[in-house]
Amino acid sequence: MAPYRGITSKKQAQTAFEDFGGDMFIKARHGAYDGRGNMHVASKTDLDEALKKFAGRKVYAEKRVPFKKELAVMVAKSLGGETAIYPVVETVHERSICLEVLAPAEITKAEYRLARQIASEVANQLDGAGVFGIEMFLTDDGGILVNEIAPRVHNSGHYTIEACYTSQFEQHVRAITGLPLGDASMSVPAAVMINILGERNGPVELSGLHEALKVPKMAAHVYGKSPTKIDRKMGHLTATAQTVSEARARARTARKIISI
Amino acid sequence: MAPYRGITSKKQAQTAFEDFGGDMFIKARHGAYDGRGNMHVASKTDLDEALKKFAGRKVYAEKRVPFKKELAVMVAKSLGGETAIYPVVETVHERSICLEVLAPAEITKAEYRLARQIASEVANQLDGAGVFGIEMFLTDDGGILVNEIAPRVHNSGHYTIEACYTSQFEQHVRAITGLPLGDASMSVPAAVMINILGERNGPVELSGLHEALKVPKMAAHVYGKSPTKIDRKMGHLTATAQTVSEARARARTARKIISI
Repeated sequence: MAPYRGITSKKQAQTAFEDFGGDMFIKARHGAYDGRGNMHVASKTDLDEALKKFAGRKVYAEKRVPFKKELAVMVAKSLGGETAIYPVVETVHERSICLEVLAPAEITKAEYRLARQIASEVANQLDGAGVFGIEMFLTDDGGILVNEIAPRVHNSGHYTIEACYTSQFEQHVRAITGLPLGDASMSVPAAVMINILGERNGPVELSGLHEALKVPKMAAHVYGKSPTKIDRKMGHLTATAQTVSEARARARTARKIISI
Repeated sequence: MAPYRGITSKKQAQTAFEDFGGDMFIKARHGAYDGRGNMHVASKTDLDEALKKFAGRKVYAEKRVPFKKELAVMVAKSLGGETAIYPVVETVHERSICLEVLAPAEITKAEYRLARQIASEVANQLDGAGVFGIEMFLTDDGGILVNEIAPRVHNSGHYTIEACYTSQFEQHVRAITGLPLGDASMSVPAAVMINILGERNGPVELSGLHEALKVPKMAAHVYGKSPTKIDRKMGHLTATAQTVSEARARARTARKIISI
């Protein structure tokens, strides 16, 4: 039984809820991102609420997958037929929004190899050229499930600007113009990217950047968006270091100082 | 006796020529770069020619300095009073134009320390904020002489884009906006920058870029200038590697393929 199915009636939703062990998501088929268009359903009440919320929209049900970590791999496919695979990273989500990206992912060698292999196989199945963000679950039993494919430069690839020989942005341009792909490996031992998510609604009032930039080997990207909104991606920070934990400490130190 | 002096008459020029052992340069005081506005004077005929060439311009005479290598150090001074010193690099000139930059410079540890120390002392003497390119001669007797100071981002600092935690461009912005300075150290073991100098006069016809980009860990910058002119700086290539010689081989391989 596939762990997901289209839903076009309340009856189908109820059957899915039973088949999926009373623990699933209802997801909009279009226009869903950063947790929007997704709803966790763990009770009949949740189910009624979800159907009400998504009334009039095309939806599907998906069995909840218990996972240890979320992983992502950027893959580039060029017009010339080349493929370049970036490192496996761990993505850390809060409220279904990507908050941190840890590069490389701290997983076993076997898991790392498997994630790269799956990314490569997914890339082979995709038409078109450019970079793709391939998101995965590392399940509790050590398996890997592809969760989402973003056909574009991706938040989970922002770390490549400071941490890889070829950033995802340069790679995308190389890929879609038919140029040879660049080296997708890391030029530093470790990097951590933290999104600057809006913490209130209103006009942008950036503060703390000066102090934050005192943190060593830390790059700040402020997107110039306005206004700020709760959980809106307003910018990101990438710290590099000898280890992921050191990079994470740097990025978090800087993030705490910044308000936008 | 200072090894340079202002020249306002033919008589002064002749005296300088004698005092400087018949081996000197006549240099324009303004508007001189990439060897333009400079003339080597090693004979009375040269001297006559130089005075004719620079007639009407303010000039000075400079004793020729025999040197082993040319070095450069980028230094940043911020509005906040901070100083950041980049690695010592070797600059290789042809026809008085910077052709290659090797980072880090392959010199003795003592020479390296001395060059950094001198760069730091020069920075302390300078007013203003931003990045400065400090060019030096490593003389035959192991001394270091400051040759030129460029009060701006500089060709000898282009390698910092790919090879340092903070590029000279980001550093300049940090410096002049009063932000803390970034880490000026190298994020990779070695880098070599090669300028793409025009080899003919006429409309730009870029070729070979596709092949050149197959060279690993090599970044190409094409400035979009037009037309191309002999020795005009049309772009540059930066290769990174574990060693300077490996990076140089990569950059040279790529350069040979490109025509503009």
